Amino acid sequence: MINNISIQGYKASFHDIAARDFFGETSERTYCDTFAGVFDALKNDQSHYALCAIENSIFGSINEVYDLVLKNRFYICGEVYLRVEQCLIGLPETSLDSVTKVYSHPVALSQCDEYLNQNLPKAERLEYQDTATSVKIIKEFNNPSIVAIASKEAAKLYGMKILARSIETNKENYTRFIVLSKNNNVDKKTNKTSIVIKTSHVAGALYNALGSFANRSLSLSKIQSRPIIGKAWHYMFYIDIDAGINDEKCKDALSELNDQGCEVTVLGSYRAAVGEWQ
Amino acid sequence: MINNISIQGYKASFHDIAARDFFGETSERTYCDTFAGVFDALKNDQSHYALCAIENSIFGSINEVYDLVLKNRFYICGEVYLRVEQCLIGLPETSLDSVTKVYSHPVALSQCDEYLNQNLPKAERLEYQDTATSVKIIKEFNNPSIVAIASKEAAKLYGMKILARSIETNKENYTRFIVLSKNNNVDKKTNKTSIVIKTSHVAGALYNALGSFANRSLSLSKIQSRPIIGKAWHYMFYIDIDAGINDEKCKDALSELNDQGCEVTVLGSYRAAVGEWQ
Repeated sequence: MINNISIQGYKASFHDIAARDFFGETSERTYCDTFAGVFDALKNDQSHYALCAIENSIFGSINEVYDLVLKNRFYICGEVYLRVEQCLIGLPETSLDSVTKVYSHPVALSQCDEYLNQNLPKAERLEYQDTATSVKIIKEFNNPSIVAIASKEAAKLYGMKILARSIETNKENYTRFIVLSKNNNVDKKTNKTSIVIKTSHVAGALYNALGSFANRSLSLSKIQSRPIIGKAWHYMFYIDIDAGINDEKCKDALSELNDQGCEVTVLGSYRAAVGEWQ
Repeated sequence: MINNISIQGYKASFHDIAARDFFGETSERTYCDTFAGVFDALKNDQSHYALCAIENSIFGSINEVYDLVLKNRFYICGEVYLRVEQCLIGLPETSLDSVTKVYSHPVALSQCDEYLNQNLPKAERLEYQDTATSVKIIKEFNNPSIVAIASKEAAKLYGMKILARSIETNKENYTRFIVLSKNNNVDKKTNKTSIVIKTSHVAGALYNALGSFANRSLSLSKIQSRPIIGKAWHYMFYIDIDAGINDEKCKDALSELNDQGCEVTVLGSYRAAVGEWQ
């Protein structure tokens, strides 16, 4: 079976690169305009998996995705990290001196703010829906004074020239993606578990909850608060635990959370990614 | 002296209403297009105070504002909560059956999604920069088939008719605004303190930090993690403490955080707002 993965964005977008990293070159993608569309595609069996950015090391959590994960109740079955390296892309004959317009996604434009101020101070910045399709459109313009910012993969896909590489201001720019499935097939080598807890609304409730982990020397790689809809200023907490769901200490910690009166939802247990970004 | 407050948005926007709530009707506003512009206005002495939305009870924290607060190092000197009540606004002769277009800010449009689906299923939804200015523009169109979604204050300002009130899906819709000043004049009646902490990157560090408060029965009304730029997957935590900075228990807790090796930044200590939203 060829895996089909629903992603937000198009060919050579960072989501597309992350999906190929995780599932291999032979996998297929269902391209969606929005994050909600990515989840809908999985729900409607148009894809076998969904892959979604959930956090960037500079911009922080993508709240919309956190909310969609809980709403849809699919299972997180993996994660991918990707270094976000932005390139300035144009026609072979483009000279930086003559550039008047730069197209890209607004986040990519802001990530390259310093480079643009220094090297293209007079160029107009034009926001486009996606980094990769901004390369497609400047190819269609076929005008050497118009350039785009996108991945090196996008330059390759559309046969365009990389004019400058790694132009993002902050090189510690990584995005974490999660992989979601309808099935809860937990990998035997799982060593990471994602949960959501709703604590009781009393002083020290979060402190006690974190104690369930700290007192068992369980590390948490992320804690993210999100509002509980309909209960103004009450919060739930998304927590990533550095242990698999079958780890005795993890089981005990979750059981202690229940004893404390916490409402615990397990979003998935999976193998943690390893790499340069850690 | 007449207080001048820089805000994001224009006359009769929710920021404008919040500023008048806090500073009174005689205060003046400096209207800015962006949150960054609001902070710049205070920095450049174009305003005496800045007022900025920092959290909505449904959408959660506004990360950009959290980052701007820390970057600019002004002092939080107050807070305001506002119920977000959206109205459908049009010309006196407008009949719902004939409406073809609805203008508003994208967040307001999504907040009223259920109402629009039920009552105006065929109307095109058009995104505009601001709720209040969308009323201004439909007044200029002077076309009974075009309506806007905004506050009742915006309807009043532009002399337009409220066709339906409280059309937002979730009535528990409140926004918290913070007031910022260049001066750290702490109110004697302060009973709330906002800080940012960077813990050491070891297991249980946040648990120990929260213990400084829990062990003194100090309540925290908010904990928000944000990435530390340049240190991928390390976090700082914005914490709101339900105690003034001069409270002995609060002083002791902050001192214990220092002893634990936490880097603590006090963003301000101020009087907590009280009201229906609690």
